[in-house]
Amino acid sequence: MKPGPGRPRSVECDRAIHDAALTEYADRGFDGMSVDAVAARAGVSKATIYRRYPSKVDLVISAAYVVAEELAPKPDTGALRGDLVTSTKSLANLMNHSVLGRTMRQVVADAGRHPDLAEMHEGFVKMRRQGTFAAFDRAIARGELPPDIDQELAADLLAGPLFYRHMVRRLPVDDAYAEQVVDAFLAVYATVPSTR
Amino acid sequence: MKPGPGRPRSVECDRAIHDAALTEYADRGFDGMSVDAVAARAGVSKATIYRRYPSKVDLVISAAYVVAEELAPKPDTGALRGDLVTSTKSLANLMNHSVLGRTMRQVVADAGRHPDLAEMHEGFVKMRRQGTFAAFDRAIARGELPPDIDQELAADLLAGPLFYRHMVRRLPVDDAYAEQVVDAFLAVYATVPSTR
Repeated sequence: MKPGPGRPRSVECDRAIHDAALTEYADRGFDGMSVDAVAARAGVSKATIYRRYPSKVDLVISAAYVVAEELAPKPDTGALRGDLVTSTKSLANLMNHSVLGRTMRQVVADAGRHPDLAEMHEGFVKMRRQGTFAAFDRAIARGELPPDIDQELAADLLAGPLFYRHMVRRLPVDDAYAEQVVDAFLAVYATVPSTR
Repeated sequence: MKPGPGRPRSVECDRAIHDAALTEYADRGFDGMSVDAVAARAGVSKATIYRRYPSKVDLVISAAYVVAEELAPKPDTGALRGDLVTSTKSLANLMNHSVLGRTMRQVVADAGRHPDLAEMHEGFVKMRRQGTFAAFDRAIARGELPPDIDQELAADLLAGPLFYRHMVRRLPVDDAYAEQVVDAFLAVYATVPSTR
């Protein structure tokens, strides 16, 4: 990978390492992947990787955080349906990402064997759920949701069908599906009819 | 494992092999498990296993089918809410099973690498969904659900939150949670208020 104009070489290099690490992880899982293969795929030496990341688990976690951060939604559309459609479509995008989609399936199995990966994954889930809870709070303040809503269950009802379709049914999750799930959610909870 | 009175030895032996195969699978995944370890855990010779199952994939698939068949729900309570609560609680039981719960997480990752396991898993999902569709059809005939309901989406809304809680959040799925999910579902679709 060549550095572009005005872009420092180390950023390109980090990017190549992260992409290679996630691809190897998605293809082989944590126990099956090797740092050698990541180095070969990224076109760098193994020493270059170990200078940045002391262990394989550090490498995978760092790569996952950077990519997830780039794809994190920050929706505040001013209305509940808009906020939920934005964040649910963003989750669908993660699932449809060629590497991240498989990474999500893989980490569900690996988390049982690797506490570091379990902790990383829990951090991601928490981060996304806090975004959802913030959208619920804004909707409650606007009178769009009842104040006593069970936010934990409500967040499960939004994310659950998408994860089920992606992980268990192994089917694509498109924008139309994301909207159908949001509209079912609104049929359960919304105090006022939603405007499209 | 000793054969009980009136129970043929081969049934006990099959059972021990199946239990050992699922435990090794749940602990190590398909690529990490060995038939040697299954034989040692079941207290039988490797030759005994290979006489019954020509390959590791045959062994895992056979074990999963037998246990899943035993735990399959056949609910027909005469009312939609009863049927859905029965089948949703039965799914929660599978998830809470010490070995099957981890097996479900593992197969989501392994299905991407092993077409035989993917096909087996798809068969399970299809079998359970057909049970749900049959419950929907009975409810439509009784006037409890509108005839034009999107049954694919409706089944996702029932199963999705449970899989999300089990696989992604790694939290226990209890009977009360299963009922909450069913009641949210009924709030979206039911044409008449459900009776508890």
